[in-house]
Amino acid sequence: MRSSGLAQKQMIGIDVGGTKIAACLVDPQGRITSSIRRSTDVTSPDATLDSIASTAKELIAMNNIDHHRIDAIGFGIPGLVDSAKGIGIASVNLNWENIPVRAGLEARLGVRCVIDNDVRAGAMGETYFGAAKGLRNMVYLNIGTGISAVILLDGKFFMGVNGLAGEIGHAVLVPDGPLCKCGGRGCLEAVASGPAIAARALEKIRSGRDSVLSNQLTDSSLPLTAEKVFEAAVLGDQVANETLAEIGTLMAYSLQYLALAYDPDVIVIGGGVVQGGSPLIIRIQEKLQQLANDSWVFRKVYTKDLVKLSSLGSDAGVFGAAALVAPQI
Amino acid sequence: MRSSGLAQKQMIGIDVGGTKIAACLVDPQGRITSSIRRSTDVTSPDATLDSIASTAKELIAMNNIDHHRIDAIGFGIPGLVDSAKGIGIASVNLNWENIPVRAGLEARLGVRCVIDNDVRAGAMGETYFGAAKGLRNMVYLNIGTGISAVILLDGKFFMGVNGLAGEIGHAVLVPDGPLCKCGGRGCLEAVASGPAIAARALEKIRSGRDSVLSNQLTDSSLPLTAEKVFEAAVLGDQVANETLAEIGTLMAYSLQYLALAYDPDVIVIGGGVVQGGSPLIIRIQEKLQQLANDSWVFRKVYTKDLVKLSSLGSDAGVFGAAALVAPQI
Repeated sequence: MRSSGLAQKQMIGIDVGGTKIAACLVDPQGRITSSIRRSTDVTSPDATLDSIASTAKELIAMNNIDHHRIDAIGFGIPGLVDSAKGIGIASVNLNWENIPVRAGLEARLGVRCVIDNDVRAGAMGETYFGAAKGLRNMVYLNIGTGISAVILLDGKFFMGVNGLAGEIGHAVLVPDGPLCKCGGRGCLEAVASGPAIAARALEKIRSGRDSVLSNQLTDSSLPLTAEKVFEAAVLGDQVANETLAEIGTLMAYSLQYLALAYDPDVIVIGGGVVQGGSPLIIRIQEKLQQLANDSWVFRKVYTKDLVKLSSLGSDAGVFGAAALVAPQI
Repeated sequence: MRSSGLAQKQMIGIDVGGTKIAACLVDPQGRITSSIRRSTDVTSPDATLDSIASTAKELIAMNNIDHHRIDAIGFGIPGLVDSAKGIGIASVNLNWENIPVRAGLEARLGVRCVIDNDVRAGAMGETYFGAAKGLRNMVYLNIGTGISAVILLDGKFFMGVNGLAGEIGHAVLVPDGPLCKCGGRGCLEAVASGPAIAARALEKIRSGRDSVLSNQLTDSSLPLTAEKVFEAAVLGDQVANETLAEIGTLMAYSLQYLALAYDPDVIVIGGGVVQGGSPLIIRIQEKLQQLANDSWVFRKVYTKDLVKLSSLGSDAGVFGAAALVAPQI
């Protein structure tokens, strides 16, 4: 597409996962003009940094980009990240702790690198390219194996006093509910994360209910996932639809609190779980609409566009990484 | 104490209520050096402004303060207030709508006036003189007839996109619970406001439970209030203590969400209901401590000093009004 040089405002974003590294070139209109995907080498922190850097180099080489024309490269990293210091504080997926990621990448690549946590990068991606485009006050609710919210106030991350603002995945939603990984009971994460969606469907099937998901129980190589519950719901499966209705109702209560606490422009729901998640979003929106119909106070905060699904789909990770080096809006 | 002139940093605060106007002089150490209390004339907006102004004038005269030495006077006003424009947008208690309060007071008093909503003023009072002294990120949860939170981020009010940030009194806490004034069911306000505390105790008594509060039922001139439930709890009344344990548990869930959403320095609980409210706060803190014991994520946000009762007691209103004209910290 381009034979030489990185056009003035093209962005390079690298999404680092525990198994795959995705690298892409995004143009100012938010289009991916080139992308590659390589395996993550997690045998050691140095090997991981090598595999990240070589993926970036490959993308740069295949697009004939002159190193001197690259302003910076953005990296979305799983786990705890100190963006200002450029440190990967802890990542279970990458098996590293207190790694000077930014310095390691800059040494390997010879260009300025910007790193941040992948969920925060995802939030940035939505405000630059996605469902929150141009909005400066947004909450990004990430639903995956865990649940957490990233908060952008006036275009900047709001972190709270201990850096934990938005950790609403560990607020109790169902008193004495299912055990959460944090040790609590009935936390939002324990009732509405990907594994929790699968667990609730499984419980219904084990109690003898008929479902297209039943074969998942007999074939242990096919564990039941939230994605499969979404697929079954679209096929009209009653167990799947009941599961999503119940979880959607619970999530709506949590989102109502979030909306009343922050009164944001928009709440974007993203994360691995929701890529096929529109059946869940529909349930959430139905319940939120009902709550707004009931309460004149909530009605002043709620519109049908307040809660949206990420519009970046499976590319949310690379868009987010690219947004880390996007020019200021 | 002073024979002439307003010492450099003394502040004048006027707390306007539906029945009483309280005016005071506060010194930089946060001590009230002079105060008076007069009736509010609510026969017309002009009469109300007259009674507010004459109360201020009386305080000024009795302290022999030279008008030229007064920098500004702060006024805490009930209801919706546009502080920037100086408008009293709506107040049920004062029976006014879209009144140019600031201009009216400045015309009557000949000095600069600062007005704000009394709950926001209360939050300011806590950061200048009270339980959040010197802290710049705080949530002030006001519990009275209604429940709402005021949020201070980096020392400034955070209002949200529609000015509704902190209206968590209308987030559903108990699905399908008691009807709320907003039209919703089971909102925090419907289960934990002053009237809701009284209603829950009353329900227990009506179901035949023995309580020192029982006589409240036979004498209609003595309606059961939250204050009386607090008094009975201190006396060891079981119905009162059960009521507060139940409501304290529910409030703890709401406060946990708030703490995880904002990760603030402190959450101060104030408002009319909590002046005798330490029996309730103890219950709230017990439940929060238990939630922190359970969850390692919540434990990173929670300390026993995170949630505090207002330390300004019945003077919170005048302290808040005075804080509106306090020098920047």
